[in-house]
Amino acid sequence: MTAAAPGSRPGTRSAATRAAILAAAERLYAEHGLAAVSNRQISEAAGQGNVTAVNYHFGTRLDLVRAVMARHGEPVDLLRGRYAARVEDPSDLRAWVRCLVGPATEYLAGLGVPSWQARCAVQVLTDPTARNLVAEDSLARPALATVMRGLEQGLAWLPPGVRRRRGAMARNLLTHTCAERERALATDTALPYESWSDTADELEDALYGLLTAPVTHHPHTREAP
Amino acid sequence: MTAAAPGSRPGTRSAATRAAILAAAERLYAEHGLAAVSNRQISEAAGQGNVTAVNYHFGTRLDLVRAVMARHGEPVDLLRGRYAARVEDPSDLRAWVRCLVGPATEYLAGLGVPSWQARCAVQVLTDPTARNLVAEDSLARPALATVMRGLEQGLAWLPPGVRRRRGAMARNLLTHTCAERERALATDTALPYESWSDTADELEDALYGLLTAPVTHHPHTREAP
Repeated sequence: MTAAAPGSRPGTRSAATRAAILAAAERLYAEHGLAAVSNRQISEAAGQGNVTAVNYHFGTRLDLVRAVMARHGEPVDLLRGRYAARVEDPSDLRAWVRCLVGPATEYLAGLGVPSWQARCAVQVLTDPTARNLVAEDSLARPALATVMRGLEQGLAWLPPGVRRRRGAMARNLLTHTCAERERALATDTALPYESWSDTADELEDALYGLLTAPVTHHPHTREAP
Repeated sequence: MTAAAPGSRPGTRSAATRAAILAAAERLYAEHGLAAVSNRQISEAAGQGNVTAVNYHFGTRLDLVRAVMARHGEPVDLLRGRYAARVEDPSDLRAWVRCLVGPATEYLAGLGVPSWQARCAVQVLTDPTARNLVAEDSLARPALATVMRGLEQGLAWLPPGVRRRRGAMARNLLTHTCAERERALATDTALPYESWSDTADELEDALYGLLTAPVTHHPHTREAP
């Protein structure tokens, strides 16, 4: 993320402008995808008379995407730290899966309706460059790093490629399931789960099953466990 | 799908027009989402001088979406019939999971690069009305209906709501994993799997694990197995 222009001092007005831009960007990205939305459109949607406001406050499109994701990534990591502190047995893989899922759904529950965070995250997943940058930012957060180590140790018996690809599947499924519920809440359509807490429970079971599934008959991927 | 207008006779030229419209619609839907693309834009992209060509040949937007999906749905179901015929033991749940995954990836492998089918299917998943209609069309196909019965019988021990929601998760994960590979092939970015066949093998294991995961600690969903 770029600093403010030389000579400017970040004040209340600047903070309000940045917040308006982040909120507008998140909603537009969630609804239309990253590639379809220009920084100029975001400036306009954020009520900025100056159409270069986004560039001034955030820099490039990728800088802005990272800032949009960091706005939630930081509080989610604080929440995740509290989940991780409750893990009693570090060899309990299911407990680490709970640390992956629970903070995401609990945070979304707190955002209220409508929210765009999960749908924006889905759009980030479809953009390889943004996805990798945002993943790097996330993995640099202390609680997620702790949880990832716990998961990796519990899954050390998996061939490394399978472990990595199942991790990506788990991330996809978590993000898409949350986005589907967020969209259903926002559009008042039928909800597959009664609550975010139920969603977390069922995701925890499903992801645990997905991650620990036996590895069978794969000529390219079968390595000694 | 609506019939051609009264008095017209489906001929070679009409068939070519319909094919051009279906191909253009699939690509535009895949790239921009269903809601962002008008029938007029599709008519233009299909090289039709008459901007009402889509309405004339297919009717409403939802009729067109169903026709786009049916174009692949029918050959995939023929392929799925051959997978289903190879199931030796109908109580072998993993064999039914293979019948779910294998035809999808094998068909995509046959489409070549670039294809848009999987990415279009992802966009359909995000539109609740289109998703339900397309699901009804799919479940009316004989081979998929057979496979769904096999899966349901093998998962009869799951509480009905959990079974239904895990089925939706499996559909999501299959569709998104295929779309991610399709996008990576089309944009020449890093591929998580070496081949469609490897993708199928790893998805089969992961979906089997997801579907058969133990059901734990769910106050609302815990029912007798």
